[in-house]
Amino acid sequence: MKKVTVLGGGTGTFVVLTALKSKPIDLGVIVSMMDSGGSTGRLRDQLGVLPPGDLRQCLVALSEAPLLWRQLFLYRFESGDLEGHNFGNIFLSALEKVSKNYEQVIKTVSYVLKIKGEVIPVTFEKTNLVAKYENGVTLEGETKIDTNYSEKSKIIETYLKPTVEANPNALKRLAESDYIIVGPGDLYTSIIPVLLVSKIRDTIKKSKAKIICVLNLMTRSGQTPNYKASDHIGDLNRYLGKKIDFVVVNDGKIPEDVLKWYIDHNENVVLDDLDQEKEIIIKANLISKIKFSKENSDILMRSILRHDPKKLSEVLSKIIL
Amino acid sequence: MKKVTVLGGGTGTFVVLTALKSKPIDLGVIVSMMDSGGSTGRLRDQLGVLPPGDLRQCLVALSEAPLLWRQLFLYRFESGDLEGHNFGNIFLSALEKVSKNYEQVIKTVSYVLKIKGEVIPVTFEKTNLVAKYENGVTLEGETKIDTNYSEKSKIIETYLKPTVEANPNALKRLAESDYIIVGPGDLYTSIIPVLLVSKIRDTIKKSKAKIICVLNLMTRSGQTPNYKASDHIGDLNRYLGKKIDFVVVNDGKIPEDVLKWYIDHNENVVLDDLDQEKEIIIKANLISKIKFSKENSDILMRSILRHDPKKLSEVLSKIIL
Repeated sequence: MKKVTVLGGGTGTFVVLTALKSKPIDLGVIVSMMDSGGSTGRLRDQLGVLPPGDLRQCLVALSEAPLLWRQLFLYRFESGDLEGHNFGNIFLSALEKVSKNYEQVIKTVSYVLKIKGEVIPVTFEKTNLVAKYENGVTLEGETKIDTNYSEKSKIIETYLKPTVEANPNALKRLAESDYIIVGPGDLYTSIIPVLLVSKIRDTIKKSKAKIICVLNLMTRSGQTPNYKASDHIGDLNRYLGKKIDFVVVNDGKIPEDVLKWYIDHNENVVLDDLDQEKEIIIKANLISKIKFSKENSDILMRSILRHDPKKLSEVLSKIIL
Repeated sequence: MKKVTVLGGGTGTFVVLTALKSKPIDLGVIVSMMDSGGSTGRLRDQLGVLPPGDLRQCLVALSEAPLLWRQLFLYRFESGDLEGHNFGNIFLSALEKVSKNYEQVIKTVSYVLKIKGEVIPVTFEKTNLVAKYENGVTLEGETKIDTNYSEKSKIIETYLKPTVEANPNALKRLAESDYIIVGPGDLYTSIIPVLLVSKIRDTIKKSKAKIICVLNLMTRSGQTPNYKASDHIGDLNRYLGKKIDFVVVNDGKIPEDVLKWYIDHNENVVLDDLDQEKEIIIKANLISKIKFSKENSDILMRSILRHDPKKLSEVLSKIIL
């Protein structure tokens, strides 16, 4: 059975895991542990726990527990002391407090959520993402970089502070993988943080795995402004230490009204300027059906344009199976 | 197998359940749902959920899940947004939010905690305890009555506002029980609230069950001040609508330093003035070994004098088995 490993942690990773969950493969995900915003950030700061947010999403994506459990883990409290906190985040935080180590946390939560495959935190150590921009600005903390929407300058360097050791299970899995999937997702706050952990890059470099990149649909203000496809691939190749083999590119049309929202927020379609001689490019209509509503808030809109798990599944299966 | 049903919800109920958990009996507990203080009260008020606190304690008492799960459910957050909340309370509250009804909550949590026996909320409806005192004072809300320490006047009437329907499973279990156990625990805020729910009293009255009372060790300021054993039995007989058959009384000596703390707080040993002709009285040393520490806070002290589950188990087994 082919060993397929996804890197990341955000909504994009959720979609890829959903796309591949029912396929006859050995599926796993190596999860970014650098999130510092929202409920996750507050739990990190207030309780001294590892950031649970990305982990929770990956766990739910690979859960084969009854729907109720998945709903429970994604449930967000809407009022009172717990307002804004996801139950899954609270579960992971409390479990960390009573467990002897984080491996026990993963084992226990994997049991209760009946995880298909492997969910592997990239590290068990606490760290923060730092980004340096071309204009000399340096930001520390994933959420600061994530919400730096107005930044026009390019990110020229990223690192972790402090440097942290990789989870040995992550290194083992990468060394044994047949395919490694990066993207879609925020390049600098979801994908690259995983690649910055000590020995991850070297292990990928040495591994026999083919690298698949599912290209983002849209540019991201403050992170990948005006990025073309080749810019994404260029940055990823650099951080991976290895050339991407397959690029999955959407050629479906994005609805006008959704596109307008993005353009109003200084984001646009990622232009496909790839060279078939460098990578194998697979094009397909990958757009998820979306219902645009004028009442949607900015936050809702920002993640409303997504890859469709079914369509993505078909394309990825062609490569992998 | 004898069907034994415990009524209540506080620390005393936890001890009785622990005492009987490993015995070859069909054990169940009908849990008070009127708690309104602390973490439970905040979750009730802020989220509109049923009070989880007493339920959580009973669930943990009857759990056969690995120690880690029981520790998790009792874990209390010590800082930040979640400060003072038990994880178990948060779990039950979130589960209530995503479940179609409270029976599903009980089923799900019983599954994950591997409950031995039955944990039955006395009602699925929201209500509050009201107490009228001899001096004309009326208090609404369990926590107000629970913390009304300085009250010297006797409680002359209690009722629920609004009146609520009993959980049909509670009525069914009571009708089929061989033994019903009341106490130890706060008479007016843990035991009697269960008996106030519609049809509970009538069902107990009609049932063939023998009633066992484990008498409290100490009086309770604001609730049972200066109560002798006969006062406890008198009040219970009235609310049960049926005569207590067996009374389990401690005759072990309470350490001087612990006793002094209670006397300083206007509480004292419950005097045994029972008449062997009215009830069957079983006396034994039931005191749990306690280590008195001057650094213990008032709250810790208030619950440090407890019945010993092992000793209690021996006495109860003699009656039941």
